[in-house]
Amino acid sequence: MATGKTMRAIVKTRAGVGAELLEVPVPQPGPGEILVKVTATSICGSDLHIWQWNSWAQKRIHLPQIMGHELAGTVVEVGDGVERVRVGDFVSAETHLACGVCYQCRTGRPEICQNLRILGVDTTGVFAEFAVIPEVNAIVNDERIPADYASVQEPLGNAIDTVLAEDVSGKSILITGLGPVGLLAVAVARAAGAGLILASEPNEYRRSLASNLGATRVVNPLEEDVVEVVRQMTGGNGVEVLAEMSGNPQALRDGLRSLTPGGRASILALYDQEVRLDLNDLVVLRGIRLFGITGRKMFTTWYKAQELLANGRLDLGPVVTHRLPFEKYREAFELMSNGQCGKVVLLPEA
Amino acid sequence: MATGKTMRAIVKTRAGVGAELLEVPVPQPGPGEILVKVTATSICGSDLHIWQWNSWAQKRIHLPQIMGHELAGTVVEVGDGVERVRVGDFVSAETHLACGVCYQCRTGRPEICQNLRILGVDTTGVFAEFAVIPEVNAIVNDERIPADYASVQEPLGNAIDTVLAEDVSGKSILITGLGPVGLLAVAVARAAGAGLILASEPNEYRRSLASNLGATRVVNPLEEDVVEVVRQMTGGNGVEVLAEMSGNPQALRDGLRSLTPGGRASILALYDQEVRLDLNDLVVLRGIRLFGITGRKMFTTWYKAQELLANGRLDLGPVVTHRLPFEKYREAFELMSNGQCGKVVLLPEA
Amino acid sequence: MATGKTMRAIVKTRAGVGAELLEVPVPQPGPGEILVKVTATSICGSDLHIWQWNSWAQKRIHLPQIMGHELAGTVVEVGDGVERVRVGDFVSAETHLACGVCYQCRTGRPEICQNLRILGVDTTGVFAEFAVIPEVNAIVNDERIPADYASVQEPLGNAIDTVLAEDVSGKSILITGLGPVGLLAVAVARAAGAGLILASEPNEYRRSLASNLGATRVVNPLEEDVVEVVRQMTGGNGVEVLAEMSGNPQALRDGLRSLTPGGRASILALYDQEVRLDLNDLVVLRGIRLFGITGRKMFTTWYKAQELLANGRLDLGPVVTHRLPFEKYREAFELMSNGQCGKVVLLPEA
Amino acid sequence: MATGKTMRAIVKTRAGVGAELLEVPVPQPGPGEILVKVTATSICGSDLHIWQWNSWAQKRIHLPQIMGHELAGTVVEVGDGVERVRVGDFVSAETHLACGVCYQCRTGRPEICQNLRILGVDTTGVFAEFAVIPEVNAIVNDERIPADYASVQEPLGNAIDTVLAEDVSGKSILITGLGPVGLLAVAVARAAGAGLILASEPNEYRRSLASNLGATRVVNPLEEDVVEVVRQMTGGNGVEVLAEMSGNPQALRDGLRSLTPGGRASILALYDQEVRLDLNDLVVLRGIRLFGITGRKMFTTWYKAQELLANGRLDLGPVVTHRLPFEKYREAFELMSNGQCGKVVLLPEA
Repeated sequence: MATGKTMRAIVKTRAGVGAELLEVPVPQPGPGEILVKVTATSICGSDLHIWQWNSWAQKRIHLPQIMGHELAGTVVEVGDGVERVRVGDFVSAETHLACGVCYQCRTGRPEICQNLRILGVDTTGVFAEFAVIPEVNAIVNDERIPADYASVQEPLGNAIDTVLAEDVSGKSILITGLGPVGLLAVAVARAAGAGLILASEPNEYRRSLASNLGATRVVNPLEEDVVEVVRQMTGGNGVEVLAEMSGNPQALRDGLRSLTPGGRASILALYDQEVRLDLNDLVVLRGIRLFGITGRKMFTTWYKAQELLANGRLDLGPVVTHRLPFEKYREAFELMSNGQCGKVVLLPEA
Repeated sequence: MATGKTMRAIVKTRAGVGAELLEVPVPQPGPGEILVKVTATSICGSDLHIWQWNSWAQKRIHLPQIMGHELAGTVVEVGDGVERVRVGDFVSAETHLACGVCYQCRTGRPEICQNLRILGVDTTGVFAEFAVIPEVNAIVNDERIPADYASVQEPLGNAIDTVLAEDVSGKSILITGLGPVGLLAVAVARAAGAGLILASEPNEYRRSLASNLGATRVVNPLEEDVVEVVRQMTGGNGVEVLAEMSGNPQALRDGLRSLTPGGRASILALYDQEVRLDLNDLVVLRGIRLFGITGRKMFTTWYKAQELLANGRLDLGPVVTHRLPFEKYREAFELMSNGQCGKVVLLPEA
Repeated sequence: MATGKTMRAIVKTRAGVGAELLEVPVPQPGPGEILVKVTATSICGSDLHIWQWNSWAQKRIHLPQIMGHELAGTVVEVGDGVERVRVGDFVSAETHLACGVCYQCRTGRPEICQNLRILGVDTTGVFAEFAVIPEVNAIVNDERIPADYASVQEPLGNAIDTVLAEDVSGKSILITGLGPVGLLAVAVARAAGAGLILASEPNEYRRSLASNLGATRVVNPLEEDVVEVVRQMTGGNGVEVLAEMSGNPQALRDGLRSLTPGGRASILALYDQEVRLDLNDLVVLRGIRLFGITGRKMFTTWYKAQELLANGRLDLGPVVTHRLPFEKYREAFELMSNGQCGKVVLLPEA
Repeated sequence: MATGKTMRAIVKTRAGVGAELLEVPVPQPGPGEILVKVTATSICGSDLHIWQWNSWAQKRIHLPQIMGHELAGTVVEVGDGVERVRVGDFVSAETHLACGVCYQCRTGRPEICQNLRILGVDTTGVFAEFAVIPEVNAIVNDERIPADYASVQEPLGNAIDTVLAEDVSGKSILITGLGPVGLLAVAVARAAGAGLILASEPNEYRRSLASNLGATRVVNPLEEDVVEVVRQMTGGNGVEVLAEMSGNPQALRDGLRSLTPGGRASILALYDQEVRLDLNDLVVLRGIRLFGITGRKMFTTWYKAQELLANGRLDLGPVVTHRLPFEKYREAFELMSNGQCGKVVLLPEA
């Protein structure tokens, strides 16, 4: 890669809502890094927070910064010491950057590293024509996976770990919250052979996507009592599994109440404030197991995503609702803001 | 049920190959028992052993005996003390009869009861118009499940426990042996979201059924090297899961060798004699986990089967290849003998 | 047992604090029941609630009622249909009375039965010279176990399931709350090979008992910052396991904050009201697994208790601080009220 | 470390039995490596194989080579890029050298790396005054652990993973084979709260050590029927856990037969040839789970060992029977050959 070349990138240049599509220098891979020619990216909820410049973003982001962390592309250059990944490989990136030396890293759990940093949040992002990523975080994709789905693998991994924290095959599941990752959770539950798949979400557009993805029944929690619907559809037993993706405390409480005694709850969502819980009835006395989910296991989750996507077990068709060129990035963030979308893909080339 | 009524039943009356379709008295349910009007039955490999009167059957079976243990039907009468099951319920039967008091029964594992007896082997069978079963062993089926599939649930449960001894979603699997339960294992692996699904079997007819059920690739082990095929299709890694359903020692050895280090093998098959294994290379040095599978968990497995079947997650269409009336029972056993079939269903009424 | 005989029993006769030691008829075992000559009983926290007649007791208890549910004794008579337990057996009782037919009972988890009743709460109790219990709930004890320890097995089982919900051998643990079951949890952690064993409790007497039981360090949370002590003693990592036995919301929050990322929390305690939790930091973002513990698994837990006690792996000496005859029952409840005790044993014969 | 210095080392210089104590150059740590001043080493069975120059050693070892891989010592120099470990740290070494890039390494299981090499087998060993090890393989020991025990941690880790492949607290266990690692397994089972601990071994000296370590009963399989002893001591149920450390096929068969249905077998041992097994009765029909154990998990096992040793949960006193200076290395190997020892420690300084 000749020095001095430039590329287009979506850059957060200053405080406040928005970002800019700029011409910036193409980066160079350092030791242990690879340079990727980006073919597809996708927008995460945290990108939207950065766009909107919410309080979390104000504290965490150092400006100016190229946005984005979900991507797929082709390796065009490798830095010193890179041995596993090769030029020409079709790759995506795990976005958790682990320290490698803490207790969790030393015991096979880098995804909960005590010194975790995040690609595109704590480092330069990937909404650009080229991106540098550490070799250790690069996933070499199966060539059968389309680029847009390869990019979406990152949040798909969140859905996989939430739904599959324990086996769901032949079990009933309730998914509360149908944002893009909640929709992916429906797809994962369906692919993994969950039986009854219930989902709750106030946004009608997204409920409709969930139906297309194979949810048995979708509930608008503003109009129906989720606990009662679950009771009716499970012969009074409740569901075996809860995947909480909404961040709404009442959804969590209703979800826990919907579980059958001995059931399992996975929580991926974050909450705006402390949550009040009747732990006695919701957790202790019914022997509930509740798992906090941080995202993808490194890299077990990615191997599962590859198996599912490369073998056609997951159809992400109904999830990826929009594919827009970089030029239309404002429209893309607008869609994310108003929720009239599933997953939104941004393409460097139209 | 008026005393003195009779019914047709397939009865093993004497040593040697075969059985007879006879008119015999309709049985009466004792305390804790229910009387079922049988609507569908299906033939198990052990029924074939009894038909053929092999050495196992000669030692185990007390003549004369009504054959069969896989069934579905409607409850027409309940004995004293029956409280859960009601007249009119659509039921199937778990065929493991547990003692209830041994260490395993007292620790939630009646399926490995130290004093286990088997319905239709150690007791009167169900290839009849009516059958008596203990209430505790009755499964009340979801009404959405067709009767023939409800009967096939029993061996389906064997496939479920073999394949799902641990999670298979997003993992690769090799199924060695495609008898009826092996075919059901392919269906379960497919429904549970296994990625790459490989299967090996010499019988061409059954390989073809496996392809219809969604196996990625079927191998004739007489013509191809299973280990090599696995290696090629997994980028050299081997598969994550082995389901051994063949009873062939070489298939077991090849299957174990096909596993990636740290992989899991479930063995449902039985072997004609002791098996030689290079434990060092096949198990110890590669950290393999090997599970002996006895069949259905009581009754977790049945609930999974219900979820899968009632919600249409499993299509048993390609597995149930033949539906014959009781009158054609000889033809049915003939089919089982020559292997030109999947699962064979026997119907009391044509 | 001749009809018309009488026995002494501690009976809750009327609303308000207290109970009476009365002469009442010796009960008769019905079908499936056994009559036990009681040799030792012990007082549970719920007995104290009934004694104090708190709001829970007022709603749940039907007067008059013999109190108590923890016992050991000898079988002196068996009802019809009893086959496993024999006259002369040394027994204790599981106090969860399960329905046997609900989803949980049918899947090997009667301890979370949807229709659970509790011995001595929903039925006649065992603070008496004789007690009737269902055969299915009787544990035949190893003869090497002393009667008082055999009685204490019931709450010991709660400690076992809380501490051993997952393996603790070679792991660090924090136990919050050192009531009798919390003290038993220290003993279990010690017996099971936990490494660092920290415990927090405001009551000095009970902190002292925990030290005698082998806790590495006991903390008075009113004087020290538990989270900070944990941090110092774990090199900044936090503990692997939390056993929450206090029912104090702040103890729970401190306990969760003391966990290392990926750690496990078991909650046996109940809380007086809803609990506020910063789920993001305490559970989700650090990948915590949180288990609600209802008590003993039926009957896996009892087999573990037997193994530990009969082989001398657990020393309950420091836990059982008082042994009093029935006559001194007021003193016994007084001790429980003021917390200057570990486990209090009540003996029918002085 | 000044270049040109020399040190004493036990070097395998040529084919055939034996080795030599030589003066050789002190090695220099390369990038990512540390130099350790060795304070204690210990002899593994594989060292004995190299000493005896058996067929495995002839194929695997490149001469000349410093022997040994179990050690403890103090870091005296660090190479470029070393960040976690510091000069002065008290360290031991994990001896599995993993590639870091294969499927197993990328999924948190480097101990079953597809390209595994072993310290002191495939690389220069540690029976020397100084040794170089990769930083990633260095364990920084708790200072409370004595140097000889710190060295023995490596085989202790094998015992930990064998015994604790699943929870043993409150369970019965049979340990077949009481070589040094088998003895360590007794110590681990005792520390982890196994109840009944049975062990079988023909060598009387080692049976006696097992008794000192807390085995409930030791059996000489040449004089007693292990299966029968187990049956008697478990009320006919069999044991819950088998730890096979003997490499004797009959011990494995007897061990498997001694398991209760649903029990777990961990196999660490290697066998001289293929093993014949009646899989039907020993594994399949009784629902046995059989785990191949390759050794220590990286580095979960080491953290467990640290917790156990630093908190005094494990007493290795009876296991470490001999401490000899390098000068007496012939005597040390002689002891290992004739089996009149537990673990033998070799000290650079007398």
